[in-house]
Amino acid sequence: MIRLKLALELDYDIGESGCDFVFNIHAAHTDRQRVVEERLALSQDVPLRVETDPWTRNRYLRVQALPGPLRLAYSATVDLSHHVAEPHQIGEVPIARLPAQVLSYIYPSRYCESDRLHKFAMREFGWQSQGYCRAQAIRDWVLQRTTFSSNTSNSNTSAIDTLLETAGVCRDFAHLMIALCRAINIPARFVTGIDYGADPALGPTDFHAYVEAYLGDRWYLFDPSGAAIPMGFVRFGTGRDAADVAFATIFGTVTTSAPRIAIEAIAGADGRLVLPRHCTEALSTDG
Amino acid sequence: MIRLKLALELDYDIGESGCDFVFNIHAAHTDRQRVVEERLALSQDVPLRVETDPWTRNRYLRVQALPGPLRLAYSATVDLSHHVAEPHQIGEVPIARLPAQVLSYIYPSRYCESDRLHKFAMREFGWQSQGYCRAQAIRDWVLQRTTFSSNTSNSNTSAIDTLLETAGVCRDFAHLMIALCRAINIPARFVTGIDYGADPALGPTDFHAYVEAYLGDRWYLFDPSGAAIPMGFVRFGTGRDAADVAFATIFGTVTTSAPRIAIEAIAGADGRLVLPRHCTEALSTDG
Amino acid sequence: MIRLKLALELDYDIGESGCDFVFNIHAAHTDRQRVVEERLALSQDVPLRVETDPWTRNRYLRVQALPGPLRLAYSATVDLSHHVAEPHQIGEVPIARLPAQVLSYIYPSRYCESDRLHKFAMREFGWQSQGYCRAQAIRDWVLQRTTFSSNTSNSNTSAIDTLLETAGVCRDFAHLMIALCRAINIPARFVTGIDYGADPALGPTDFHAYVEAYLGDRWYLFDPSGAAIPMGFVRFGTGRDAADVAFATIFGTVTTSAPRIAIEAIAGADGRLVLPRHCTEALSTDG
Amino acid sequence: MIRLKLALELDYDIGESGCDFVFNIHAAHTDRQRVVEERLALSQDVPLRVETDPWTRNRYLRVQALPGPLRLAYSATVDLSHHVAEPHQIGEVPIARLPAQVLSYIYPSRYCESDRLHKFAMREFGWQSQGYCRAQAIRDWVLQRTTFSSNTSNSNTSAIDTLLETAGVCRDFAHLMIALCRAINIPARFVTGIDYGADPALGPTDFHAYVEAYLGDRWYLFDPSGAAIPMGFVRFGTGRDAADVAFATIFGTVTTSAPRIAIEAIAGADGRLVLPRHCTEALSTDG
Repeated sequence: MIRLKLALELDYDIGESGCDFVFNIHAAHTDRQRVVEERLALSQDVPLRVETDPWTRNRYLRVQALPGPLRLAYSATVDLSHHVAEPHQIGEVPIARLPAQVLSYIYPSRYCESDRLHKFAMREFGWQSQGYCRAQAIRDWVLQRTTFSSNTSNSNTSAIDTLLETAGVCRDFAHLMIALCRAINIPARFVTGIDYGADPALGPTDFHAYVEAYLGDRWYLFDPSGAAIPMGFVRFGTGRDAADVAFATIFGTVTTSAPRIAIEAIAGADGRLVLPRHCTEALSTDG
Repeated sequence: MIRLKLALELDYDIGESGCDFVFNIHAAHTDRQRVVEERLALSQDVPLRVETDPWTRNRYLRVQALPGPLRLAYSATVDLSHHVAEPHQIGEVPIARLPAQVLSYIYPSRYCESDRLHKFAMREFGWQSQGYCRAQAIRDWVLQRTTFSSNTSNSNTSAIDTLLETAGVCRDFAHLMIALCRAINIPARFVTGIDYGADPALGPTDFHAYVEAYLGDRWYLFDPSGAAIPMGFVRFGTGRDAADVAFATIFGTVTTSAPRIAIEAIAGADGRLVLPRHCTEALSTDG
Repeated sequence: MIRLKLALELDYDIGESGCDFVFNIHAAHTDRQRVVEERLALSQDVPLRVETDPWTRNRYLRVQALPGPLRLAYSATVDLSHHVAEPHQIGEVPIARLPAQVLSYIYPSRYCESDRLHKFAMREFGWQSQGYCRAQAIRDWVLQRTTFSSNTSNSNTSAIDTLLETAGVCRDFAHLMIALCRAINIPARFVTGIDYGADPALGPTDFHAYVEAYLGDRWYLFDPSGAAIPMGFVRFGTGRDAADVAFATIFGTVTTSAPRIAIEAIAGADGRLVLPRHCTEALSTDG
Repeated sequence: MIRLKLALELDYDIGESGCDFVFNIHAAHTDRQRVVEERLALSQDVPLRVETDPWTRNRYLRVQALPGPLRLAYSATVDLSHHVAEPHQIGEVPIARLPAQVLSYIYPSRYCESDRLHKFAMREFGWQSQGYCRAQAIRDWVLQRTTFSSNTSNSNTSAIDTLLETAGVCRDFAHLMIALCRAINIPARFVTGIDYGADPALGPTDFHAYVEAYLGDRWYLFDPSGAAIPMGFVRFGTGRDAADVAFATIFGTVTTSAPRIAIEAIAGADGRLVLPRHCTEALSTDG
């Protein structure tokens, strides 16, 4: 078990018509990600509401902000209990045996046009032996062919764009891996959260987007961007792609500055301090 | 209350590797669409499974078919109880008041690129007075500018394609209306089923795709194709767009012939026969 | 006759591998644009070559620059003799009567996908009465629906993108007008040059892109951006779209700063000073 | 020298408004393709005109057809004198040394979006040694990854579509090869004509589209479709892509049936019969 303590601060300056926000910056409650404590503070005294989507368990914070500055501070302590498995023992799931609630993750979505990539993906990966290793091969292929670059993509950029541009940010890496997985019938979905940025080589902690593929009997974590340590991911939102789980969907005119994010591993209830580390095992924080 | 009796038959010839199917051809169980009775028969003696997606209540029939012919026959009797309202009394819902489970229907999806159509839609519809009438105006705009044509679109065709091509089938009309609604923040979703084809001017009954927009406190029906009578829609599936609710998703090699579909209005439990008809009221089969 | 004196300076800082340039910043020699005198100076002592494309009469300056700073200064005095005609006397040309060398300008090109816009354009403009006025109606439609905005488009942006985004720069306005003209069989082409920026309401002189449509027996000028005075256009390059006539095509790594451009009307050979002005007549600088 | 005798017949049924045609089905006159004799017959007694584009030397036949049947019969005898070279002695041409009239063939065009494929192509081919062999490597890559299939593409299909679909007809193979060549600064263009279909393994003679890449000091032939014998190509049209050189551009409503095409090698002026054959040398029919 890993205990992580995180804090984030977001600053906005709201235009004169006010602004509606839908935030998804709460740590998700799941069986393997327990929220030990959390705190939310808003600088404006406005009504707010946190709702949990019954289907994805994403928690949405709804705020109707007034003109002027708005600061949002959220902090939480979460306990992560990973399911750990040997990659070579994890198989793909035949279509006929996919659970109903997983089915929708083999279909194309806005930024993951797996329908258009079917033949391309079959040529690249159709012949490879099935299992966790094939999802891993797709992850490696995306990582190897794509350059991390913060000004080549925008909010309209899709998996096909990234395949052609061969550059993007974590969101783009994730979309491309998801689209290629679905194109060969491996269910794949988009997860947002923050990473554990303690590795100096990988940069400081930040918002992050990564991938889950459904293999064996659960969702396993993949990080096609290669920019973070999967064992240190804290989950905020789960969805088909970035259309579902933006950190902030903004209806109105605002200016904003860079978020401030901090994370640290602390001793758990048993007094032991466990640090996220790179590993070769397959990791899942699902059921 | 309207009681409809429907029957459909699908024929496939399965290639030598067999084939996995995910059908969505069961009438949905909802508060306003009661399935009085139903029957399913398959010509092959293979295991089958019907699962209900907890989120959409779509019922998926999973079949692993053997090589050779496969016939599927489904019949059902359903009772429809419409919520009927005056269009001018139905308003749009401010973002801040949209229920969490409705939120995902304002986001773009594979075939409804509302993100790219935002400015276009704002120019066309942003200035119009809000409410049911604005969704209706979008529906009319789509119908007026689009020609029904069965060979201009395919399974990759999206709302933007249809906007440019100005032609398509019911699925394409629905995608375009949905994308334009979402682009101005009206939640909209894609519904499949069969229509009540008793109007000779509109052709025989067939599979159909139509639109629900979330207005007031529920989902209202719209038929942008103008090809059917909304009061006679039987719902099979509800989703973001056609990616979610194909009648049949086929994993394998098959040939198929045209489906045979029949529908008729029959007397209800109270002995009264009510026929679907065109009307000017707003109709909902939601909650 | 209008005599214009223009000067431009471009500054680059060339990376260590050097850089190949293809510039198209020379005023074109045509029957109605006479280059009275011109001067070119480069800060690097490298070989350069000016070639005239026999087909478009564009003049291409080829430079192989060395690492370090490069300044290019070009100045010219040109005499413009416009062909002036009454709009209502100018008709469209039936396909069968289009000259061979005009034909290629009814076909789609990289940034003007007239093939995909055919049906859309027919719906908007197909019913309008033919002639100069129809090209003018397309010009007005583009201007009215598109917002001048310098950070919504990039070098990949095409006419369809601009139609959806409803925003762009002069290049984007031109591409959209060209695509719509070709879609209804009016030949249209892309022209680059500089505008006469003396109207304070329209901003200072700058590089500009505008449109020529083939009507009657020649190419007439249109400015869909509404940002300049067509009578003051100095032509550099003519092509299908921006792919053909970039001001500078750069093969290598450089940094650059904003160009400095100046233009003024001066007295002609006859001692008279004529200023470019807005007018309602149709203008051509073609043959 | 190879002497080929070809004949083609096209049949149309013209709708009641008549129809304008622009045909490009005349064998081109070039230094290395001499038209010894030719004959054209139309079943309708209507005015026709053959014009030669001064720039491409394409010959366009303009016909204004009347309602009813139209048959066009064209036959020609042409002498082909190939320039033959050793592939390993042919280099690429640095940008700075490309002739002006070749420059436009490194720019993107409607169906060859080399601008969007730049990074993709650099990753695949940027590291390979330069020269004829690199163009050949692109040709082989396209052929190996693309399946010949007559119903996966249409007249809107572009190089990027073909890259993703991995299937198409000769036109699509050509567009993809051209786009990839231009993306790494090898000038490439689109050629139409008919092939010499004497090889039973390759099917009967037909209209064909192939590629020329500018290498060394001239345009060399490539056949990315692998479906024909380059030595037997008869050139009709040369252009940027299929937008420039359709066999028939049709302005009106017609129905048509399959063309009838015949070709045979016959003895030349010197009495010798030379048959087109596959060869490993580089072939050019340019200057």
